[in-house]
Amino acid sequence: MSSSPLISRLIEALRCLPGVGPKSAQRMAYYLLTRQRQGAQTLSQMITEALERVGYCSRCRTLSETEVCSICANTGREQNLLCVVESPADVETFESSTGYRGLYFVLMGHLSPLDGIGPGDIGLDLLQQRLQSGEITEVVLATNPTVEGEATAHYIAEMVQTLGIRVSRLAHGIPLGGELEYTDADTLAHAFAGRQQLL
Amino acid sequence: MSSSPLISRLIEALRCLPGVGPKSAQRMAYYLLTRQRQGAQTLSQMITEALERVGYCSRCRTLSETEVCSICANTGREQNLLCVVESPADVETFESSTGYRGLYFVLMGHLSPLDGIGPGDIGLDLLQQRLQSGEITEVVLATNPTVEGEATAHYIAEMVQTLGIRVSRLAHGIPLGGELEYTDADTLAHAFAGRQQLL
Repeated sequence: MSSSPLISRLIEALRCLPGVGPKSAQRMAYYLLTRQRQGAQTLSQMITEALERVGYCSRCRTLSETEVCSICANTGREQNLLCVVESPADVETFESSTGYRGLYFVLMGHLSPLDGIGPGDIGLDLLQQRLQSGEITEVVLATNPTVEGEATAHYIAEMVQTLGIRVSRLAHGIPLGGELEYTDADTLAHAFAGRQQLL
Repeated sequence: MSSSPLISRLIEALRCLPGVGPKSAQRMAYYLLTRQRQGAQTLSQMITEALERVGYCSRCRTLSETEVCSICANTGREQNLLCVVESPADVETFESSTGYRGLYFVLMGHLSPLDGIGPGDIGLDLLQQRLQSGEITEVVLATNPTVEGEATAHYIAEMVQTLGIRVSRLAHGIPLGGELEYTDADTLAHAFAGRQQLL
């Protein structure tokens, strides 16, 4: 604990950041106050401004400054392809590393009955409405390959199939540049089951 | 990069925190905006408040909300013993782990001629004035055991000795709980040179 109550409270506040424990928070507080006062001022302003102006896109639920985000508003993208991801960060990853030109739907989490997170909390009612409107012809499920992510994908897949829309899941397998020897058993089993004929 | 300019600027601002790279900053920004809006609000307020009200103690140069910090203002502490440390975090470490009851002087860095940091920048003029006032009878040098810390300690030691005041340095040696086998050569050499007679 710091001998200054104000510094102690700043340290406490910094702990709301993910992956920041008491020691890192202390280091950050002292660093901001001794060497980065300008940066700290900017940070404080940016947090306030972002909190005020960044909300959620009414179509895909991702973080957005506008009522409809720039991707949903882009009429040049394929309007019939919908990729379902867990978070806005996943959208950024897709945008920067794949040539995907369709639209997104962001769950903002995954199904987790034990934490009380049901279909409504991840916007599946909104997703269903959107699919019923008839614009979408294929849904790509790109939730994380975790137990919760798989369960969520399975739940959504059933919903989509009921509506007669094509549904696919990202391929599982050995990552490029990975070594067979160090690949975990589950991944290897998936890779074997999903083997593809070459000729 | 985020598709929202405001989120991009928040991510950029978060990078002023020590040890936070582009990927962590992105994770923090999304986390604050999606799951920790209350915490983010508090953090922004605390940064602003701390920047406004936390300055430096006029006696020991540590971070303080008051003109003289609580340690310097505490008349119950030994007024003739002065421990010289590099940062406010070092003061906290000393306070929480040793029974030290004297006063501190915080350099807020170390001598580093290559970076243009000379004696004036680490407050050695203020330290000299204080030592000349005649209150202090012993100075304990507790700078970090790095090249710069050692050089700084050496420089201050000469200054203190010129004034005829006793000066000491924290003992170097094998850390408690450490293993001889894994102790680096410099530390072991110091520990051997500084060996103490038992009986």
